[in-house]
Amino acid sequence: MIVVMSPQATHEQTELASALLRENGLTPVPAKAAGATLLVSEGTGSPELSASVERSAGVERVVVVPGAQRLTSRTYHPEDTRVTAGGPDGSTLGGPGFLVIAGPCAVETPQQMSTVVDVVAEAGAGMLRGGAFKPRTSPYSFQGLGVSGLALLAEQRMRTGLPVVTEVVAPADVERVAEESDMLQIGTRNMQNFALLREAGASGRPVLLKRGMAATIEEWLLAAEYLMQMGNGDVVLCERGIRSFERSTRFTLDLSAVAEAKRLTHLPVIVDPSHSTGQPHLVGPMSLAAAACGADGLLIDVHTNARGALCDGAQALDAPQFTELMDRLRPVVEAVGRTLARPRSRSLAQV
Amino acid sequence: MIVVMSPQATHEQTELASALLRENGLTPVPAKAAGATLLVSEGTGSPELSASVERSAGVERVVVVPGAQRLTSRTYHPEDTRVTAGGPDGSTLGGPGFLVIAGPCAVETPQQMSTVVDVVAEAGAGMLRGGAFKPRTSPYSFQGLGVSGLALLAEQRMRTGLPVVTEVVAPADVERVAEESDMLQIGTRNMQNFALLREAGASGRPVLLKRGMAATIEEWLLAAEYLMQMGNGDVVLCERGIRSFERSTRFTLDLSAVAEAKRLTHLPVIVDPSHSTGQPHLVGPMSLAAAACGADGLLIDVHTNARGALCDGAQALDAPQFTELMDRLRPVVEAVGRTLARPRSRSLAQV
Amino acid sequence: MIVVMSPQATHEQTELASALLRENGLTPVPAKAAGATLLVSEGTGSPELSASVERSAGVERVVVVPGAQRLTSRTYHPEDTRVTAGGPDGSTLGGPGFLVIAGPCAVETPQQMSTVVDVVAEAGAGMLRGGAFKPRTSPYSFQGLGVSGLALLAEQRMRTGLPVVTEVVAPADVERVAEESDMLQIGTRNMQNFALLREAGASGRPVLLKRGMAATIEEWLLAAEYLMQMGNGDVVLCERGIRSFERSTRFTLDLSAVAEAKRLTHLPVIVDPSHSTGQPHLVGPMSLAAAACGADGLLIDVHTNARGALCDGAQALDAPQFTELMDRLRPVVEAVGRTLARPRSRSLAQV
Amino acid sequence: MIVVMSPQATHEQTELASALLRENGLTPVPAKAAGATLLVSEGTGSPELSASVERSAGVERVVVVPGAQRLTSRTYHPEDTRVTAGGPDGSTLGGPGFLVIAGPCAVETPQQMSTVVDVVAEAGAGMLRGGAFKPRTSPYSFQGLGVSGLALLAEQRMRTGLPVVTEVVAPADVERVAEESDMLQIGTRNMQNFALLREAGASGRPVLLKRGMAATIEEWLLAAEYLMQMGNGDVVLCERGIRSFERSTRFTLDLSAVAEAKRLTHLPVIVDPSHSTGQPHLVGPMSLAAAACGADGLLIDVHTNARGALCDGAQALDAPQFTELMDRLRPVVEAVGRTLARPRSRSLAQV
Repeated sequence: MIVVMSPQATHEQTELASALLRENGLTPVPAKAAGATLLVSEGTGSPELSASVERSAGVERVVVVPGAQRLTSRTYHPEDTRVTAGGPDGSTLGGPGFLVIAGPCAVETPQQMSTVVDVVAEAGAGMLRGGAFKPRTSPYSFQGLGVSGLALLAEQRMRTGLPVVTEVVAPADVERVAEESDMLQIGTRNMQNFALLREAGASGRPVLLKRGMAATIEEWLLAAEYLMQMGNGDVVLCERGIRSFERSTRFTLDLSAVAEAKRLTHLPVIVDPSHSTGQPHLVGPMSLAAAACGADGLLIDVHTNARGALCDGAQALDAPQFTELMDRLRPVVEAVGRTLARPRSRSLAQV
Repeated sequence: MIVVMSPQATHEQTELASALLRENGLTPVPAKAAGATLLVSEGTGSPELSASVERSAGVERVVVVPGAQRLTSRTYHPEDTRVTAGGPDGSTLGGPGFLVIAGPCAVETPQQMSTVVDVVAEAGAGMLRGGAFKPRTSPYSFQGLGVSGLALLAEQRMRTGLPVVTEVVAPADVERVAEESDMLQIGTRNMQNFALLREAGASGRPVLLKRGMAATIEEWLLAAEYLMQMGNGDVVLCERGIRSFERSTRFTLDLSAVAEAKRLTHLPVIVDPSHSTGQPHLVGPMSLAAAACGADGLLIDVHTNARGALCDGAQALDAPQFTELMDRLRPVVEAVGRTLARPRSRSLAQV
Repeated sequence: MIVVMSPQATHEQTELASALLRENGLTPVPAKAAGATLLVSEGTGSPELSASVERSAGVERVVVVPGAQRLTSRTYHPEDTRVTAGGPDGSTLGGPGFLVIAGPCAVETPQQMSTVVDVVAEAGAGMLRGGAFKPRTSPYSFQGLGVSGLALLAEQRMRTGLPVVTEVVAPADVERVAEESDMLQIGTRNMQNFALLREAGASGRPVLLKRGMAATIEEWLLAAEYLMQMGNGDVVLCERGIRSFERSTRFTLDLSAVAEAKRLTHLPVIVDPSHSTGQPHLVGPMSLAAAACGADGLLIDVHTNARGALCDGAQALDAPQFTELMDRLRPVVEAVGRTLARPRSRSLAQV
Repeated sequence: MIVVMSPQATHEQTELASALLRENGLTPVPAKAAGATLLVSEGTGSPELSASVERSAGVERVVVVPGAQRLTSRTYHPEDTRVTAGGPDGSTLGGPGFLVIAGPCAVETPQQMSTVVDVVAEAGAGMLRGGAFKPRTSPYSFQGLGVSGLALLAEQRMRTGLPVVTEVVAPADVERVAEESDMLQIGTRNMQNFALLREAGASGRPVLLKRGMAATIEEWLLAAEYLMQMGNGDVVLCERGIRSFERSTRFTLDLSAVAEAKRLTHLPVIVDPSHSTGQPHLVGPMSLAAAACGADGLLIDVHTNARGALCDGAQALDAPQFTELMDRLRPVVEAVGRTLARPRSRSLAQV
């Protein structure tokens, strides 16, 4: 049961409604959405309880979602949620547009950034990606430039007008990363880092939540619930491959999960064909497949000098490959009734 | 090393070439292709050996495939192989057309067959499917009509001109099933039933080889190699989902495997979105994704009365769902430069 | 519902009982056990139906198993089943003894067989293994000696008094293999080769059923049900590892499945630590673990010249490793209240 | 290459050695072990470089580990590492003793703690477990008592003399949890939460590192490397099941990974049979198997009132089950040449 308090409800009114739920065997947990306080309980309670809570002072309405009681549920919120990064003139995920986010795996040098960003902006990407904080399996691998990487990213944002998304790996870094970017990325290894989710949920920035490599769709949506429960409705899900026995790809890209997630939740869902397949020659086919099956966008690694890349260069597309992919992507995106999205600040004519 | 004997080579010449290979540490295994005998060895041998074998009597040429020595390898046969079922006026897989094979999971009654076949033929399917022999997990489940089911299938073939594919589960049934159908299907549970593969490979009929639910791409191609080694070049691969931890779909459809298989082999590759996802609402999105990523066709369960189906009714599309899918499929197929295929005997105007 | 007909029941009486079940919505499938005909239906039917069937002529009793209606179910048959291979003086699985089955992966030469068999018999193995028909992933790998391999196995059985188990891969070979061995092995790739299961179930020989590498415990037990339904109660289950993402072992040995299978079924359960781990240094620890968790025996690859082995030499133990393993195994077997089993024909003093 | 600086080395000497490595193409990362600074590089460098570095001022010795350069590697440190929790009179993991750590999944009330702790202490456990901070898949599930739970744990430690291990989920909590417990637990969902690993590694407390549910053995050891690189050599690995397709257990317990990890690393390895199987009836068999295959201990959930448990009560053993397990465990532990361990402060006579 989800109890929506009115924006004018007092603290006491919220406490009273909460007590009423507890007396009836539910365990309400407070959440925030669009300025209002919500009380979310896993159980559904009786119709009598719903009626009684709805009559309590300060309660605006009671929503009983069949099955799980979730802020991420399409039952609770039937329309597609649109998430815009980079302010009112920014780029939107989850609407009629199909957004391609592209850039290098890791931010390395000003020169590298300019070159890659020119390529992806020219080819039609609607947003930039690039890692300043890199979670690495080995402590002896390059861990990212950290704060100085953020500055390089911000520079490219200024130069191109394209919003940027970048990963955050520690709760203590959230505030800083939120200041210097347009969207926070939670990586696959941190999908159930609940301390990080809570901090990101409270940051006020849109969040890109990658699916854990061993997470079920259910667990992925519950991780998104942690973000939404902190009052952050701007959550974008990203399928990036799961662990299976197949060894010719780095992970097994689960596109059924994209279609299933779109059915279960109102949040936008995008696909990372680079880290899932781990091989440039599969990025193209999987990008087209993602667009065809209803994904709202892509997250693609691009590099202009893959051999020298300090991080995961192996799966990145080079400039001609990315440009060719964008050309092949357009007709497929249009075949499913959408168009490639760009930030409002860049006229479509430029593309 | 693959040694191609000339069609006029005598048995003695083949034996001599084989002995020469064995003396040099290889273990040649005979295979047949396009009327010629091949001697296939896993190793590559030395350039001197190649030269020496090439000079032997009855040897037409020597092919050294870097890496594995395979009849399925695109290195050995760079052009796409086209497989036609149903004779010269039949339906082709692996060419510019995209072929939709559709029908009920199991053949049940004449009435059921007519109704379903009318729907799929009308909507644009290019080939019929239907199981007469059903491999079932439990011995207490419906095992198919057997031989009488084959007759019902043959009837629909006559009535519509659409070729039919049907599963064979025992070596002893291969001859009979080959007589009454246009293409043999080897199911996921039999992908490594080598006795069955050898019999099917010798049948002279095209074979649809489903990927084992726990088979790597490499193992799948090696199973196809068993078929080709018996002289049967008309092999079509079918991705149908692999086992993973995700429980919201019956299997995890691995579309990366389609793109990867298309790169590694010259054989056509199609996708079964019905048995992989196990849910009708995912069949549509996964069909579009399969077409976008380069698959050569689809294998779809359709039923006009899913609740009463004796076998796997749960994932079948009903008539309106299938018709709608075909309508959504056309623009995606065209966006990747292909068209929906039909047997030559049915003019495209009919569609 | 399982209806047990009396051994004296006529065909008409069985037909009448069957008709009564069908009229009440069940779909009885005939099976045989201990000389009697059974009618097994998946559903439970009503108490009234049970009573009414029980009063029918020729019906001995009606068993209603809560949940699935299965011949493999411990609910249907609470006591442990003991399976003896090699006649009354043979080796028993499923009793208080713990049986080690050992030998080479593939039968190759008389010399190889004598050497390996001397080692394993001396060290305390209670049964021999060795493959004459080898299912191989590649058609270019050694496929076993076939019928001549069976003769080499039979020779060792005569020489040592140890029963032998060997794999059968095609329905057409079952009769021959059953004549020349004491127990038929169904391999992991054939666990759902239902034509082969039916033939093996009808052979009259005990059957060792390996778990499919992607089979759930439920599916494994249903494959055993195919064997039992043909009247063969002498079925031994063998856990041999499942496919997972972990790459440092060939498969992931699932010992929980051993304990769970022992709980669900009355059939003996053994473990193959050789093919599951694929590495000799893990065979010892996993053998001890299997004994500790309640397995009834082991199936171990031993070779005296692993480098030259034509098949899977990599994971086989050499003579000193196998002897050391047997020495470490004894105290663990005794710690769980069992002893190492030997065929009755070899006095324990010999060990 | 691992360069061990002498304890008296100056900062400048360390910098110079580091520069020398970098000039030769390596990327040394500083680590601490037993009071000395180490410079760890993934590459091995040339023999000339080793010699030259070894002659540099302040360098004590150079270790070149074949393959990966790792502090966790048994090649670098061949003897078993012993980790003692709870001070000099505490409990030791990794020596000849086999340590059973037991307690409730979550700390709930003083009454619950006393009851459970009395049971496990009486039955022979050598250390206590109990969660105060619980990482939960759903934000609406009980998240643990937090700081007040730590106090309840500390109380039991005082009362019984048994050391305690408890989970920490956020870098900001590490200091507090380290003060109030004897060993920090990093859970499966946080195995690659590198910010948390670094903080825990710097805490000075022993750390119990659970394997990620989708982590390879290699990735698990690299996570331990993060801890060791911070100067913390007291790391204990805990296998707790991996994600697979099998659905009758919550996870698939991978005991081969225990034997393999013992071979690759000098760190102690224990097993959690409770969370892996998720079912009380499998905890016993898997505990015995773990002891037999070479694990150094167990981590077991015990509850005296499982139905009322706020967290994961389903898989916990009740008092009689735990006592029976300890009785069955002793002979198996002794069969592999070990004994049940207790803290030095409790005389063995008490058991």
